[in-house]
Amino acid sequence: MTFHDRLDSAARQIDALLRTAVRGDLPVHDAMRHALTGGKRLRGFLVIEGAALHGVADATVAAAAIEALHAYSLVHDDLPCMDDDDLRRGQPTVHVRWDEATAVLAGDALQTLAFDLLSDPACHDDPAVRCVLVSTLARAAGAGGMVLGQALDIAAETAGRPLTLNEVEALQAAKTGALIEWSGAAGAVLAEADPAPLTAYARALGGAFQIADDILDAEGCEDRAGKRLGKDAAAGKATFVSLLGMDAARQRAADLTDAACAALDGYGARAETLRDCARFVLTRDR
Amino acid sequence: MTFHDRLDSAARQIDALLRTAVRGDLPVHDAMRHALTGGKRLRGFLVIEGAALHGVADATVAAAAIEALHAYSLVHDDLPCMDDDDLRRGQPTVHVRWDEATAVLAGDALQTLAFDLLSDPACHDDPAVRCVLVSTLARAAGAGGMVLGQALDIAAETAGRPLTLNEVEALQAAKTGALIEWSGAAGAVLAEADPAPLTAYARALGGAFQIADDILDAEGCEDRAGKRLGKDAAAGKATFVSLLGMDAARQRAADLTDAACAALDGYGARAETLRDCARFVLTRDR
Repeated sequence: MTFHDRLDSAARQIDALLRTAVRGDLPVHDAMRHALTGGKRLRGFLVIEGAALHGVADATVAAAAIEALHAYSLVHDDLPCMDDDDLRRGQPTVHVRWDEATAVLAGDALQTLAFDLLSDPACHDDPAVRCVLVSTLARAAGAGGMVLGQALDIAAETAGRPLTLNEVEALQAAKTGALIEWSGAAGAVLAEADPAPLTAYARALGGAFQIADDILDAEGCEDRAGKRLGKDAAAGKATFVSLLGMDAARQRAADLTDAACAALDGYGARAETLRDCARFVLTRDR
Repeated sequence: MTFHDRLDSAARQIDALLRTAVRGDLPVHDAMRHALTGGKRLRGFLVIEGAALHGVADATVAAAAIEALHAYSLVHDDLPCMDDDDLRRGQPTVHVRWDEATAVLAGDALQTLAFDLLSDPACHDDPAVRCVLVSTLARAAGAGGMVLGQALDIAAETAGRPLTLNEVEALQAAKTGALIEWSGAAGAVLAEADPAPLTAYARALGGAFQIADDILDAEGCEDRAGKRLGKDAAAGKATFVSLLGMDAARQRAADLTDAACAALDGYGARAETLRDCARFVLTRDR
């Protein structure tokens, strides 16, 4: 199977699980299902492929958990008091389709769902492994991880000066890097193997991913991306593109992609799908 | 020690742990610490006392976790798009003191903190026990528990008719009952003992607690309560007081308090502090 076949296959597994994970027929349940629909499932794919590299055949539950957590972060990020976005994955955002209260609650319950899934015996037989997954995800998502990055982003808006390259790196490492790193490492954790190589891979991949996101924001197609673009430039935000220029940003993303691939050397040819994934991240248009 | 001495002692243990649980000096970290300050610590007290009944000397981490989760729910509940409250625990609410974005993020990170604490080895030696605590809390807090109750509350506002007694009972069992039940059961879970008696106790206690809350909202002192009162009546919301009348509501709360105490019969005199707690809930003025 090619990389795209495997990505599609992972997405189908994850979607099938998530479709059954939310029961109930109140607006909040519809909103949760809406927020769980679509997306590239890149984080879940990393979990499933990293697990497969270590001989773990089924990592769908952990993959669904990181996608639930990612969905929560998008729903809250899109709120009027945050990024105020009306379009996500080609669909109206939750607070536009329903209302702000439903968006707050749906995001809250999607975060809870992530920990529900990880702590479930269906995720892994060994509760010690489940606990490590819960604990590491909590660290990656909380006030020292993703929320820290979001708070730094807010602080930057009122700082009165654009961020430096070092500051943008620290912000992005927290805001999007921590969850991507968790996703990379999770497969090794599920196999009770050393997560260091996959962590190094995912860290470099996350860096390339964010630069690619900045390039997409600067010159991508809104229809294709399924979300509003050009917002960073309009807001005068420092990005890798504004700080480095387009050419140097592309070069840096390419270097990070090479570093991501090199981190997988120990796995040999078996890791080729993850190397293809790094190359995809570099060239993605959504 | 009297009940109030033990409640104070539990609150001091919990507060000491929570003071060290949030690091960082961004507004989101200050907001988290603000939200974690004050409160009766009733849920954490139930964890600690239930654990003590089963010979578990230190349940502070699990107690701090439920207080972090409770704090998250208050921060998000107080948001303008939810209950729009400006006063909580005698202090300005987070979105008033900071802003809405910081309140969304602080609430998000407080929920994460709860699962971080429960999955930490400091909570319990056995990862299987930690996993049960994570899993049961996720069920109690998510879209089938607390968030379900909040969503039912929102749905009631647009239903065009006041809720029936059965509907109010179902709403409150989800909205506040599920977390109180978890708090009651957690001590037995930490001891790997049967949680049924403490669960029955906490279920009745939660019922009495909610009726007492309705009575407080109808005739309490705002200064003493540290939050806005009279909002339910002003909004025309069905409450136990509006549905039963004040006298019958008081009687029902007293009956539930008796039921809570009776559920502890198997523990004999050792459970007297928890019985005192049930009597306190009935007569509390904040």
